[in-house]
Amino acid sequence: MGKYALKERSMSVYFGIDIGGMSIKVGVVDANGNILAKCADVTPLGDPEAAVDVMVRLMRGAADAAKVSWEEIDGVGAGAPGTVCDGVVTYATNLGWYGVPLADMLRKATGKPAAVGNDANCALLAEWRLGAAVGKANVAMVTLGTGIGTAFIADGHLLLGNGAASGEGGHIRIKQLGKKCSCGREDCWELYASASSLLERTEQLIEKNPTGKCAAIAQTKGKVDGFVLFDAIEAGDEEAEKVLEELQVDIADGLTNIANLLRPEVIVMGGGICAQPRLLAPLEDMVNARTLGGKNNPHVYVVKPRFFNDAGIVGAAVQVMP
Amino acid sequence: MGKYALKERSMSVYFGIDIGGMSIKVGVVDANGNILAKCADVTPLGDPEAAVDVMVRLMRGAADAAKVSWEEIDGVGAGAPGTVCDGVVTYATNLGWYGVPLADMLRKATGKPAAVGNDANCALLAEWRLGAAVGKANVAMVTLGTGIGTAFIADGHLLLGNGAASGEGGHIRIKQLGKKCSCGREDCWELYASASSLLERTEQLIEKNPTGKCAAIAQTKGKVDGFVLFDAIEAGDEEAEKVLEELQVDIADGLTNIANLLRPEVIVMGGGICAQPRLLAPLEDMVNARTLGGKNNPHVYVVKPRFFNDAGIVGAAVQVMP
Repeated sequence: MGKYALKERSMSVYFGIDIGGMSIKVGVVDANGNILAKCADVTPLGDPEAAVDVMVRLMRGAADAAKVSWEEIDGVGAGAPGTVCDGVVTYATNLGWYGVPLADMLRKATGKPAAVGNDANCALLAEWRLGAAVGKANVAMVTLGTGIGTAFIADGHLLLGNGAASGEGGHIRIKQLGKKCSCGREDCWELYASASSLLERTEQLIEKNPTGKCAAIAQTKGKVDGFVLFDAIEAGDEEAEKVLEELQVDIADGLTNIANLLRPEVIVMGGGICAQPRLLAPLEDMVNARTLGGKNNPHVYVVKPRFFNDAGIVGAAVQVMP
Repeated sequence: MGKYALKERSMSVYFGIDIGGMSIKVGVVDANGNILAKCADVTPLGDPEAAVDVMVRLMRGAADAAKVSWEEIDGVGAGAPGTVCDGVVTYATNLGWYGVPLADMLRKATGKPAAVGNDANCALLAEWRLGAAVGKANVAMVTLGTGIGTAFIADGHLLLGNGAASGEGGHIRIKQLGKKCSCGREDCWELYASASSLLERTEQLIEKNPTGKCAAIAQTKGKVDGFVLFDAIEAGDEEAEKVLEELQVDIADGLTNIANLLRPEVIVMGGGICAQPRLLAPLEDMVNARTLGGKNNPHVYVVKPRFFNDAGIVGAAVQVMP
């Protein structure tokens, strides 16, 4: 780190803050998207001022760890899980925040330029500016996590919508099974295509076949995580392969909806489970086979991100890059 | 018409051409969106040059009917049912056109500035510039016809997408019934929420209850059209009311998908059947009850258009208005 800092000190550096319902992560990010150091702590829910105090402490810690002085930092960007309009977090249920003027609070607390955006939009900005979709005019970022986050560059602009409340692609309805979603609707895409759905499907398979390979792998691991299904497939479990195919059909279904509506050139698939090549590989063909116009319309590329779990930190910082 | 022409001659006038799979309609449109005269003829399919000849003949006829000289027309705009990128109709199955440089052809044929766009985008431009959504930064236009056409203004820009192939909202999948769509997918929204679906549902009700009010009205009319169901409801047919409610749930389902993804401030509902207040009235409440964030997110207005079937002609002309 010290060596890097000496070599590249001429490059601008920024704080990137990724605010989640569980933790706040802060990184020192350079103009190329490299994270020089990062720190994290638990999110104090429902108390924005306490959260800003945590952020300031983490920023000081990250700067120290990166061997960058406070004065050298050129700006502060933050991403929050909710609707963010003109620097104000208007609505973030997971944080218990409503109408929090976070950009102003960060400006006052740091004396630096500050910008705040939705976390899914930040992840997209990271990939669009510095990652897997540089220079593309139409990009979708789809992050498979607890739910599904979506964000869009449309015709060269970050898509915000009225009150910056767009981009809730996880809540497109794709089925008719009557499964309740936390949003109040039924059968939203994220119920069938998120990382949570992968876990649920893995658990169902283990329940259905408690003596199968999937169950054995989970038992050895002592838990069911996002790797169990893929490990079982690697070990030749055909049932596990079928479960993955069903998940992929549902992922591709929502991606096709997005492709028909917005026709991105590139869909960047975020979230830890998308690091599995086996998950990602068939999606591009599935989407292009299903979108309207087939080969008469432009091809849709489905790619993995550059930043994975760091996209939130890097993209938050991108907001204050010139 | 003559009186109007005399009174308003100082205002700029344009040709607006609405190219459909059945007919080509041409209007002389003034800068306020008034149609001074219009003419129509059958579309010669698969032959773009013959189609342009028809357009020129119709333009001459419309100018004559409007008592406007050819020289007074300031430009020509056309809308085509397909993908249109940079003045070229890249892909219009219904016309049998692939890669037709229509803007250039119209420029040569008329000696006037010419612009060409997708027909759904044209309808939206008419409503955005001169109709039901003037001055709004986020607008969706949803036209319930044979299929469902969608088009979007996002953050103040007409949304085009890669190769201008966006806006195919009729092909969002909303069910799991296995009903085949012409696009190759199953259960696309337009199978359940278009004017065609209204007719299909009406026919099914008549079949199910051949002695009911709906059947009687259709028999009196000698046909099943888009009014039969509404007439039956007017006459107190509770079964017909239930059929309408089911249609509305499916319409609202797709609108909610669009609202979650793009968060328009206004959704303009086009197509003849949307002239029925009974169809339109409950949709706004249904959409706002289902979209993510409920009252925490900005309200989505669902409104009728100004132009209805003339939106294509007017919007085509809007493309060449300054």
